[in-house]
Amino acid sequence: MLSVDLNADLGESFGNYSIGNDEEIIPLISSANVACGFHAGDPLVMLETLERIKKSGTTGLGAHPGFPDMQGFGRRYMDLTMPEVRGIMLYQMSALDGLARTVGLTLNHVKPHGALYNATFDNYELAETIAAAVKEFNPALKLMGLSNQNLVKAGKAAGLEVRHEVFADRAYEDDGTLVSRRKEGAMITDTNEAVKRVVRMVSEGRVESINGNDINIQADSICVHGDGKKALDFVREIRTALGADQIDIITM
Amino acid sequence: MLSVDLNADLGESFGNYSIGNDEEIIPLISSANVACGFHAGDPLVMLETLERIKKSGTTGLGAHPGFPDMQGFGRRYMDLTMPEVRGIMLYQMSALDGLARTVGLTLNHVKPHGALYNATFDNYELAETIAAAVKEFNPALKLMGLSNQNLVKAGKAAGLEVRHEVFADRAYEDDGTLVSRRKEGAMITDTNEAVKRVVRMVSEGRVESINGNDINIQADSICVHGDGKKALDFVREIRTALGADQIDIITM
Amino acid sequence: MLSVDLNADLGESFGNYSIGNDEEIIPLISSANVACGFHAGDPLVMLETLERIKKSGTTGLGAHPGFPDMQGFGRRYMDLTMPEVRGIMLYQMSALDGLARTVGLTLNHVKPHGALYNATFDNYELAETIAAAVKEFNPALKLMGLSNQNLVKAGKAAGLEVRHEVFADRAYEDDGTLVSRRKEGAMITDTNEAVKRVVRMVSEGRVESINGNDINIQADSICVHGDGKKALDFVREIRTALGADQIDIITM
Amino acid sequence: MLSVDLNADLGESFGNYSIGNDEEIIPLISSANVACGFHAGDPLVMLETLERIKKSGTTGLGAHPGFPDMQGFGRRYMDLTMPEVRGIMLYQMSALDGLARTVGLTLNHVKPHGALYNATFDNYELAETIAAAVKEFNPALKLMGLSNQNLVKAGKAAGLEVRHEVFADRAYEDDGTLVSRRKEGAMITDTNEAVKRVVRMVSEGRVESINGNDINIQADSICVHGDGKKALDFVREIRTALGADQIDIITM
Repeated sequence: MLSVDLNADLGESFGNYSIGNDEEIIPLISSANVACGFHAGDPLVMLETLERIKKSGTTGLGAHPGFPDMQGFGRRYMDLTMPEVRGIMLYQMSALDGLARTVGLTLNHVKPHGALYNATFDNYELAETIAAAVKEFNPALKLMGLSNQNLVKAGKAAGLEVRHEVFADRAYEDDGTLVSRRKEGAMITDTNEAVKRVVRMVSEGRVESINGNDINIQADSICVHGDGKKALDFVREIRTALGADQIDIITM
Repeated sequence: MLSVDLNADLGESFGNYSIGNDEEIIPLISSANVACGFHAGDPLVMLETLERIKKSGTTGLGAHPGFPDMQGFGRRYMDLTMPEVRGIMLYQMSALDGLARTVGLTLNHVKPHGALYNATFDNYELAETIAAAVKEFNPALKLMGLSNQNLVKAGKAAGLEVRHEVFADRAYEDDGTLVSRRKEGAMITDTNEAVKRVVRMVSEGRVESINGNDINIQADSICVHGDGKKALDFVREIRTALGADQIDIITM
Repeated sequence: MLSVDLNADLGESFGNYSIGNDEEIIPLISSANVACGFHAGDPLVMLETLERIKKSGTTGLGAHPGFPDMQGFGRRYMDLTMPEVRGIMLYQMSALDGLARTVGLTLNHVKPHGALYNATFDNYELAETIAAAVKEFNPALKLMGLSNQNLVKAGKAAGLEVRHEVFADRAYEDDGTLVSRRKEGAMITDTNEAVKRVVRMVSEGRVESINGNDINIQADSICVHGDGKKALDFVREIRTALGADQIDIITM
Repeated sequence: MLSVDLNADLGESFGNYSIGNDEEIIPLISSANVACGFHAGDPLVMLETLERIKKSGTTGLGAHPGFPDMQGFGRRYMDLTMPEVRGIMLYQMSALDGLARTVGLTLNHVKPHGALYNATFDNYELAETIAAAVKEFNPALKLMGLSNQNLVKAGKAAGLEVRHEVFADRAYEDDGTLVSRRKEGAMITDTNEAVKRVVRMVSEGRVESINGNDINIQADSICVHGDGKKALDFVREIRTALGADQIDIITM
């Protein structure tokens, strides 16, 4: 039987600032990527998020490290040296891992956030550095990255288990990278179409690129969002469609 | 035979900013308290510091968590709630512990930094919260605090091993707390006198207060500094004096 | 004819984090206190807020400086030295003043934020330092502080114009300070009662303390909030009640 | 008679962290670029630096804004949007300008710092945004940038007075940009050669590129450094050589 993982980014609140509906999205997903205090989150938010994930009982826990840029939410590329990238990866994984152990959870995977994730698309050295840091920290951790692209390639080359991530609401270029948000058609705004694409990516391993070409894609995990009622409804529709196609949702 | 620990705060550089002579002080001490990135230090500095401690082979490793205030170097009291204190303790211990394990070191103890340490002198609830966080994180860790005061009391009450810390260059009040730096006579500036006081604290468990009274003091570990040639020379004199009195210097 | 000012704290969003309904509250108030990037706000948020205030045409502009603690939203007391307080006051007033001039606005007043405001209640030296910094920066600025308490006293003593601030939703002690939020009855939750108190404070200069005693109070400006529909409705009710009593709402 | 300006970056200390010998370099230069608290500096350091510059009586004051990255000292490129660049420029100029006016100084020029300066070499839109922000803030300010490159071009196009900056200790490419520090020969390490190059740049408007070609260069201001005895000695040698060639050192 087919199966797929549903992942979402959580724990992105900060101090007095609230973002997301973590309590509502947790029961709908099978993997949670938790911000580690550099681009979002803080010690209290992280602990609270971990307690929620623990209570859910079934959600896999991932570290979600990002660039040290709270004001930019980790979405602005920062030109760090490779030793600096290793440092921020190890520090953030350590922080989340220690808090997780304290509340009784085990870290399952790592998924870089925002610009740190996107910058790997055309920077293999960066992908290798991230993969090496994950391996150095704990070789049992899985590395999640954009399907068939540098992060999963570098992770595999490093001997890590990898997870190919796909996006329900994003268009793809012919080479399998995401269409830039600055280009027309980058977002799949029609829910029906998005759901159909997701089901096909999981069941057939294929998706239509923005140029109308069919490309190969491996869908281990689908990225979904929990900010706002519409986002939550969309996750529910994906779950229904996957269920109708007898595709199980399981932590990767 | 008598013995005592010599501890110093290390890893306090930050990005382009350098503080301390970590390489020179490490061979002279038996315990190192490493800043965790909130009041000083950053991921690269922490990793570099840990590698140096590892290379030394004999220096015990401590986490040195502080208030989240880089500009104030953790020396300005911040009125955090107790859950916030628990959060910053767990986060910083986690970060340092994870980096330590990555480079092959094991955490031995925890000593709060600056205002977080000093604020416990008249706030037992804060001391209890710190002790509880250490225990929750890892009950095998030792908690270091001012000799006979709240931190070691709370640590003991929580079932932790504690280490009583004394200061070679600071005057004491009759109740065993440190004389405020704002008061005349707070600092012991005469090296000979400081060395004599240290030896007596270790061998007799007594020290003369600023008012001329003899008070009890337990000296498990002596706090020394590594910033500047004078500070390093002072540590060497203490080592010589302890040696002359056949007091071993060993990691606590 | 009687008149009073209505003030609210604005520009408290930060990067990707949104707080408040600045667009909706601006038409309802006569003075806006804008966060300066230390406890809330960032350059873009400040510029956007200033443009909104400018567009309103009638809202007085105030600087709202706070402790450098984004994570704590400036609500955690930080034990800064008086030179440090002067520094953060001058820096934040400078930043906001320069941005205001750039968009074509003139700074009218200064109101410290959160813990920096509250800490003056029992620390006259802090109030004096804040008043001195305002005067040093621009002696034409008005200083807003809790009615009849240290900030306005120190401001007056320094030769500044001051504005006595009252709170519609807070209970008062007999000495005119605010009842701590930790005490029962600290918040006036009944809207009718709150509105009646406000009108009486403005028209009679009197308010009933939490102990049932009538105390003197000067109401130059009423602090209101804009976060959430309920808060906005409350401001509308105050405006209606003031209008019914023929009390004008004008920038102080 | 020929003249040239000598500029240095000052006020780069931060809290407990000290960098540079500001007191010693100030009498040797004619322009000081002061960090504004984003990549270096803090309110107290800025005020202290401004007081020193004021006491010197002859040193021109410049704002030295950088990316918001204290840990990276503003040396790591951050991919900000143009509105964000405008925001951080306006905020930092405002902060420094307000503090300067408070201590009785007038801002003379603006020179972006580190990665914000370097990133303009191949990004004219960034240079335009910086120039527009300076003009918007105060059209009387001079904009300093790498000689003959984008910053001064964009400044001139915006109608600003510009200052062409040259580096005594750096090699040039044929197109007048700086040789990357990662390339061999990027630094001019021989003091005699560096001094000769400086004198020739000022008197002849020519410099030899790393490829041995003579290129045009305009030397309005020479960048020097004040960190360490060797750096200070180098400045003294430049001053002597300029004097011997009857080139005046004057604030631009």
